[in-house]
Amino acid sequence: MRTHFCGLVNEALIGQTVTLCGWADVARDLGGLCFIDLRDHEGIVQIVAEPAPGVEGNAEVIAAAAAVGYEDCLRVTGVVRRRESVNARIPTGQVEVVAHKVERLNKAEPLPFHAHENPGEDIRLKYRYLDLRTPDMQRKMRTRTKLVQALRRWLDARGFQDIETPILTKATPEGARDFLVPARMHEGEFYALPQSPQLFKQILMVAGFDRYYQIARCFRDEALRADRQLEFTQLDMEFAWVTERDVQDTSESLVRDVFREVMQVELGEFPRMTWSEAMRRFGSDKPDLRIALELVDVDAQVEGSEFKVFTDWAGVDGGRVCALRIPGGASLSRKQIDEYAAHAAKYGAKGLAYIKLSDSGEVSSPIAKFFAEEAFAALVAHVGAGNGDIVFFGAGPHATVSDFMGALRLKAGKDFGLVEAGWKPLWVTDFPMFEWDEEAQRYVALHHPFTAPAVDDIDDLRANARTAVSRGYDMVLNGNEIGGGSIRIHRPAMQSAVFELLGIGAEEAEAKFGFLLDALRYGAPPHGGIAFGVDRIAALMAGTESIRDVIAFPKTTSAQCLMTGAPSPVPDAQLAEVHVAVRPRVRND
Amino acid sequence: MRTHFCGLVNEALIGQTVTLCGWADVARDLGGLCFIDLRDHEGIVQIVAEPAPGVEGNAEVIAAAAAVGYEDCLRVTGVVRRRESVNARIPTGQVEVVAHKVERLNKAEPLPFHAHENPGEDIRLKYRYLDLRTPDMQRKMRTRTKLVQALRRWLDARGFQDIETPILTKATPEGARDFLVPARMHEGEFYALPQSPQLFKQILMVAGFDRYYQIARCFRDEALRADRQLEFTQLDMEFAWVTERDVQDTSESLVRDVFREVMQVELGEFPRMTWSEAMRRFGSDKPDLRIALELVDVDAQVEGSEFKVFTDWAGVDGGRVCALRIPGGASLSRKQIDEYAAHAAKYGAKGLAYIKLSDSGEVSSPIAKFFAEEAFAALVAHVGAGNGDIVFFGAGPHATVSDFMGALRLKAGKDFGLVEAGWKPLWVTDFPMFEWDEEAQRYVALHHPFTAPAVDDIDDLRANARTAVSRGYDMVLNGNEIGGGSIRIHRPAMQSAVFELLGIGAEEAEAKFGFLLDALRYGAPPHGGIAFGVDRIAALMAGTESIRDVIAFPKTTSAQCLMTGAPSPVPDAQLAEVHVAVRPRVRND
Repeated sequence: MRTHFCGLVNEALIGQTVTLCGWADVARDLGGLCFIDLRDHEGIVQIVAEPAPGVEGNAEVIAAAAAVGYEDCLRVTGVVRRRESVNARIPTGQVEVVAHKVERLNKAEPLPFHAHENPGEDIRLKYRYLDLRTPDMQRKMRTRTKLVQALRRWLDARGFQDIETPILTKATPEGARDFLVPARMHEGEFYALPQSPQLFKQILMVAGFDRYYQIARCFRDEALRADRQLEFTQLDMEFAWVTERDVQDTSESLVRDVFREVMQVELGEFPRMTWSEAMRRFGSDKPDLRIALELVDVDAQVEGSEFKVFTDWAGVDGGRVCALRIPGGASLSRKQIDEYAAHAAKYGAKGLAYIKLSDSGEVSSPIAKFFAEEAFAALVAHVGAGNGDIVFFGAGPHATVSDFMGALRLKAGKDFGLVEAGWKPLWVTDFPMFEWDEEAQRYVALHHPFTAPAVDDIDDLRANARTAVSRGYDMVLNGNEIGGGSIRIHRPAMQSAVFELLGIGAEEAEAKFGFLLDALRYGAPPHGGIAFGVDRIAALMAGTESIRDVIAFPKTTSAQCLMTGAPSPVPDAQLAEVHVAVRPRVRND
Repeated sequence: MRTHFCGLVNEALIGQTVTLCGWADVARDLGGLCFIDLRDHEGIVQIVAEPAPGVEGNAEVIAAAAAVGYEDCLRVTGVVRRRESVNARIPTGQVEVVAHKVERLNKAEPLPFHAHENPGEDIRLKYRYLDLRTPDMQRKMRTRTKLVQALRRWLDARGFQDIETPILTKATPEGARDFLVPARMHEGEFYALPQSPQLFKQILMVAGFDRYYQIARCFRDEALRADRQLEFTQLDMEFAWVTERDVQDTSESLVRDVFREVMQVELGEFPRMTWSEAMRRFGSDKPDLRIALELVDVDAQVEGSEFKVFTDWAGVDGGRVCALRIPGGASLSRKQIDEYAAHAAKYGAKGLAYIKLSDSGEVSSPIAKFFAEEAFAALVAHVGAGNGDIVFFGAGPHATVSDFMGALRLKAGKDFGLVEAGWKPLWVTDFPMFEWDEEAQRYVALHHPFTAPAVDDIDDLRANARTAVSRGYDMVLNGNEIGGGSIRIHRPAMQSAVFELLGIGAEEAEAKFGFLLDALRYGAPPHGGIAFGVDRIAALMAGTESIRDVIAFPKTTSAQCLMTGAPSPVPDAQLAEVHVAVRPRVRND
């Protein structure tokens, strides 16, 4: 239908006849002289329909061009010539096409919105095809394609085998977030959509595949945060006969090479940090290393004070007292300090103590009175505060304090322009194996129940469960956990012991994971892997905050597709065929 | 953990120390001298643990080797040396590894079955990881990976953009086969799993993407035939600004290049055939051209006979009388002829007339008596029957006769060894736009409701709906429809007219496809595409009849995963969260 792409018409084609297809981006009728900006996926070129004495059919060409409306689909044949007034803003700006023929292949009705009107996201999602047609969205989606292509090319070249695992699977332990699918042939039974291919990829290692990958669709049915989708895409990888260092080195190379290829940036060797160090220095298990601020523990410096909030927690097992110094933070007003306190409160802080040192060294602090003069000076010196700084303090349970102080660190980084440009990756390792769930009075797995502990000995794990470290690891980039994985348990006795520690009895384990325990019994090699969040990495590369910008047809935070109207009611007869009914509403009146 | 792969140890490594990981394929303890065949994904190498006077720890190595059981996971370190008795059957047969260290990384319990016992498919599927570990299944799965890699590489190199479309979508018109997923956040509403990304890929063309592809998971909830799966994989492609020839030429090149790369075969240029010709000559819209047999219409030759079964249908609109000559078919016994009749009956035949010409030219035929001698000779001559042949005849409604005669052609091809080796692709084009559904008294779409008719004029289509031809096409290979596609309707008025002809009213169309009709209104370019069955192509390439052999975790014909036990009952509380209940059983007593 066409000989060239609009956006690629150039000076080398001058004098040649070309046929182009595209959308009318702009059409101007200057009375017997028409200009059309014709746009395709490669870009825009100017079409001219002008009087040419003696050229047959020329009046019809002008008439056809004059009738063109915004976003009409056109096919234009004409001759390329040098443009009189060069348009330096577009790559084709040196040339234009003098039309011999203008065909309208499809008429466009007046659009419901125009991109330059900065429409709301709801209308963009309803008319997603118009939104995606904009050059900005085309660029973002192309970044995602480039990322996925680069990932695949790298893995294919290194013998990773791309294997598809089922979407219709068995319900998993975190069943509360499973999507359920009623089975037509099995009355009262259900498939579940996978939250990840975790068990299948482990089984593939037992099945003798050496290195597996899959760009896999995963599903999680939970209240959507701004940054989540019901269905999301991960690069899923698994390796047989490996240690954690093998998995980390390979996937670090992958990410480094792909960033070089797609973004032309050099990430260098990734720093490595234990989970404990990350929590201590940054109050986060996914620290944003672009921000130079660090937390400083001050237990020793506050123990002698009379400030009960501090002394209750300083030096206490499970407690934490720490400080965050913000250079230049003395400029914060009382109101702004209150905003910081409110921000910390969202993460569990009960209050926010501070010390402000004015540019002339004047101290302003609600806690100064609780300290002897010398002790106060020692505290200020210990946190390295100087004139013009502010220091925030947190005291309380270790996890809570780390959380809210970590959140303040991020806020201060942004507010004070302390976020370095560029890319800061790192590995976080040595995660705790378990967290103690006070409410349920039992352990829960920090990664998932298939993660191997650092110790090989089952009795050792049982005796030291609270402090046990796992063989899990996360890859973090600019404060985002972009990948996470672990070495898996490959011996059935250890897997059963971990299930038991997690409160999963032998019977329940057999019912839910019998096939995995079986597989481990029949020659399971040591294995491990990692999974990367493709949506998130694509969004980071495309320079957008929202993963919705790199998903062709995303759902809203209320789990709807505004374009198609999914989900939607279904006739009862259709439900009857799959043996379910909508549940009568329980009224609370 | 290892320095080399077992299957790649070779003479270049003689004298070197290697560390290998793998499964104990065979272990023989000859009393103080042990041999282990160690196997990984690349192949097998022989390990020897032998007495070596003066070598420290040697007794322990022999003891460790002697304790090895079938399918144990091992790590072995040793020195490569030339083998005394060469094993020509394996690539590593020139060498062996003299073990210095044998570690058992995991013990395997006695397996539930052994591959050489030729276990049933049910047990193979229950212990899928053991089945997949066999070299035969490894080879089949690797063929699939190679196919998918080759497809992607080809498409990536030509500017096709890989775009993911949703799995949680809106219910479609063929809703009867939709999998439904209850929505947690929208009481009484459901998502549906896509039967194909058809509408999304069309929308992507409207959205300005030029060439799209996706290796897409599709879902169809229907009684499983041996050859079907609830979820299957298609290579889905769509092109903007194209005619059918553009789509066909590009996808023919793709398939030709991929077969050359993966199978080292040259498919050549594909023959092209209209649907009418395919039905007339082969009684099938997916003719297997490896079989040289053809159907021959005999209306003119039987019209003068007294055989009512023939004369009722000969020369009648909507009727068909045709013949299938089988060279050498005179060898069929009466019982075998009955088997052919029974086979035809399965496809709707009411009986099966025949003429048998013995090697000496003797005629045996239940219908000869209805013909004048000359007319009978003319019939025999027309179908080209000679001594030793049999000719089967079919008469009745056109579609039924084509169907059962086509089925007989396939059976005869197989029975008489008339299936040529190799690959016979073709295009089938010019499909009817509609089929008339007698029961529902309305038209149904032969492809799908978005396929463009050959005519552009709506009134013309309405006036000639019964004979209208579509712009659909299928790619057929060795009697399998491996791909199918069409040019789509890109103008809203034509789409509405086709919906109307299919009995989909304006209101229903708006409710189900309003977003498509909208999209066509706002600048939809001419577009078309095709989808290929990846599972089927992989099975053909791997030389297996069953697509289950090229799917890692397939379901049975009763829609179950025997390994995980999906589908399974779900606690009522979990169903309550998604607002559904299992329907009380309706008892018919």
